[in-house]
Amino acid sequence: MTPTEYLRENRARHLEELFEYLRIPSVSARSEHDADTRSAADWTAERMREAGLETVEVAETPGHPVVIGEWRGAEGAPTLLVYGHYDVQPPEPLDEWVSGPFDPEIRDGRIYARGAVDDKGQAYLHLKAVEAHLKANGTLPVNVVFVIEGEEEVGSPNLGAFLRKNAERLGCDAVLISDNTMFAPGLPSVSVGLRGLAYMEVHVRGPASDLHSGQYGGAVVNPANALARIIATLHDEDGRVTVPGFYDRVRELTDEERRSIAGLPHDEEELREEVGSPALGGEKGFTALERLWARPTLDVNGLLSGYTGEGAKTVLPGKAMAKISMRLVPDQDHEEVERLFADHVRSLAPEGVEVEVRALHGGSPWRADPEGPVFEAAKRALREAYGKDPVLTREGGSIPIVHTFQEIFASPVLLIGFGLPGENAHAPNEWMSVENYQLGAEAIANLYDHVADGPR
Amino acid sequence: MTPTEYLRENRARHLEELFEYLRIPSVSARSEHDADTRSAADWTAERMREAGLETVEVAETPGHPVVIGEWRGAEGAPTLLVYGHYDVQPPEPLDEWVSGPFDPEIRDGRIYARGAVDDKGQAYLHLKAVEAHLKANGTLPVNVVFVIEGEEEVGSPNLGAFLRKNAERLGCDAVLISDNTMFAPGLPSVSVGLRGLAYMEVHVRGPASDLHSGQYGGAVVNPANALARIIATLHDEDGRVTVPGFYDRVRELTDEERRSIAGLPHDEEELREEVGSPALGGEKGFTALERLWARPTLDVNGLLSGYTGEGAKTVLPGKAMAKISMRLVPDQDHEEVERLFADHVRSLAPEGVEVEVRALHGGSPWRADPEGPVFEAAKRALREAYGKDPVLTREGGSIPIVHTFQEIFASPVLLIGFGLPGENAHAPNEWMSVENYQLGAEAIANLYDHVADGPR
Repeated sequence: MTPTEYLRENRARHLEELFEYLRIPSVSARSEHDADTRSAADWTAERMREAGLETVEVAETPGHPVVIGEWRGAEGAPTLLVYGHYDVQPPEPLDEWVSGPFDPEIRDGRIYARGAVDDKGQAYLHLKAVEAHLKANGTLPVNVVFVIEGEEEVGSPNLGAFLRKNAERLGCDAVLISDNTMFAPGLPSVSVGLRGLAYMEVHVRGPASDLHSGQYGGAVVNPANALARIIATLHDEDGRVTVPGFYDRVRELTDEERRSIAGLPHDEEELREEVGSPALGGEKGFTALERLWARPTLDVNGLLSGYTGEGAKTVLPGKAMAKISMRLVPDQDHEEVERLFADHVRSLAPEGVEVEVRALHGGSPWRADPEGPVFEAAKRALREAYGKDPVLTREGGSIPIVHTFQEIFASPVLLIGFGLPGENAHAPNEWMSVENYQLGAEAIANLYDHVADGPR
Repeated sequence: MTPTEYLRENRARHLEELFEYLRIPSVSARSEHDADTRSAADWTAERMREAGLETVEVAETPGHPVVIGEWRGAEGAPTLLVYGHYDVQPPEPLDEWVSGPFDPEIRDGRIYARGAVDDKGQAYLHLKAVEAHLKANGTLPVNVVFVIEGEEEVGSPNLGAFLRKNAERLGCDAVLISDNTMFAPGLPSVSVGLRGLAYMEVHVRGPASDLHSGQYGGAVVNPANALARIIATLHDEDGRVTVPGFYDRVRELTDEERRSIAGLPHDEEELREEVGSPALGGEKGFTALERLWARPTLDVNGLLSGYTGEGAKTVLPGKAMAKISMRLVPDQDHEEVERLFADHVRSLAPEGVEVEVRALHGGSPWRADPEGPVFEAAKRALREAYGKDPVLTREGGSIPIVHTFQEIFASPVLLIGFGLPGENAHAPNEWMSVENYQLGAEAIANLYDHVADGPR
């Protein structure tokens, strides 16, 4: 039996196992889910042992643990490090889910659940690829090390230190990550660029407590109005970010890059329908794909002030809060951008309120050099599984840890996504295609063979 | 025993009764408190009966009931209608209360509880004044009708129709209302002006659901950013409201009015300390008192969009909401202002989002003519209780129903507040001065005598 045959025969069980994984509400951002998050780590370790990995460890960190699983029986062969995460985003708003976020359900060929694609489904298919080799052949053509963490959704605050501390043990020839999307259904993709992130919180404080808007309205500066004015000035009329210095390090797209992006099968009207907005928008002078992949942004992620319940409460709020994040592109540096943003926003504070700016988390952007034997092996494996040559894409999102891996291990990072556009990662009704869960595992199983074959 | 002596003898019991009243969480805006609100109505009716009112009724409306209590034994004497309300504002944010909002407590001569001053304490002292006459003298020098409603905090949607329907039965020579503040501690006041209110809700909708800010950020218009831009444009650099036509009907202050306001004992630095803002603010070219009493405003009352919990959720929100209210001054009309606001805000909607504007509730401003026998009786009664001549003030707040009373009964409305600046109405730690609860009842008991005496 080949690994592919094994994967096809065990398809139903592998789905059932993923469902079990998805039922664990491992929301790393919420301390009330700490026990669930721990239980997802233990579950991951248990499945690694069952799959046949030899050294499995739930390694403690100051936060949620990292699950390590190793198989090193292929002496002389390359070592691949597989990175993924078992933690998930908070599921809110709950009332917009068709089925429960932690009650996975297949509808129209899609597995719906929080974490289905980000990242439990994508991480787990790598383990199934390893299992396929070990169960079908009793061995693996390469050495593997799994590093599955539990803090990706809160910015991986402890993974960098953990990797550095264990750099020798975890040393590898390439890093494999599936935590992103294919460009289109049936079109396998290798991502060669990620945007970075600078996530900030802005607090505006006016009166010491909420006031009656009749008794005091007109005499004090309203912190919610002040916050709105601050946010409004952060873009100019062309949709460009006005933070001084923000674009200084932005690498402009070359004509060749623009041509390559324009050559991809992409329809802006389809994107508009997918998101459901009345019209697309953003920085003037760029196509939507260019804006998503190669231009930095500034978006409000959350706004809160005063009374937001039912009815009309005539309150003049004492404070107002915005979560604001910027997506960064090469060669912006997230720490520099955080500083520029904080300085600028503080300078915008009108008299009558106080403005505090905090950086919540960040990561710098990333650009891969798509060359070398592991990259070639991936192209071949994807072509075999999907019957099509993979395309080179970039991601609008951020996987800050990619940077860290590249730095610590000085190895190429392969970002091979099996998600799909519209998958609702970080939103209600997150899903992963059942087909990609299967073909992804088959492609990765093939990849191990081709890496072992060496360059061709 | 005089009514005043009676009030002093029964001071402790009257406080205990008010505490009982304040323990009922009659939050009219919240349907989960419907039973509590009803129970506050029944409690009010029961106390009216005990005080000696002869006809007491919990009168149904399509919403919360109106409690009516009448005593009409003073044939030929004037009839005074006392208006108040037994409903209260929602207590949130709960964590800012020193003692529970429905667990009244006296600290430093103040009764702390939701509704202490707005309006249970102020309404109830009128009933105690009536009780004092009826228990001390067995009679009242005037006829009284109490109209205590349960929907003031949600804009009195049913009171107008109720009053019109019962106009003949409730006909009166003057209306007494205590739902506002004195100008300063120990300085009795009669209010001759109120601002109106136009309370709106603005909904901005972009993508059909929340999106991942990395995957989609830069390609769609963010509704929270769009809402911030809309709000930001609603004021100009001088703090003036930019809604076209907004100031067209505003009656400018006369030199005499400005002089009279400037003559009141008012310190802007004290006001600043009271509210706890770093500095006061508002429309340029006016003093704080002028801005509060005679200038219209536009304030955000609430803001909500996206993720507002702990941590950094990288969401691009599908929608954003603001509650925005305007305080109006003579001769602005709230319905006209609502229309102007809605038209203007809709016109500000950028491409890529949809904007919906709803009017939640409103009332026009009011200006009294401070003359006539009842007004003179009030001045005399306040002077006796407080040892000082009352000053004429205006209120920054709105009591829309004042308009309705004046219209329906063609009688003067006397607005005599026993609240105090800084009382936190509509905010955490609402309070009423114990002294004013007592002196207010004494003043009102005297007022009945002086109205009966006729003009002097």
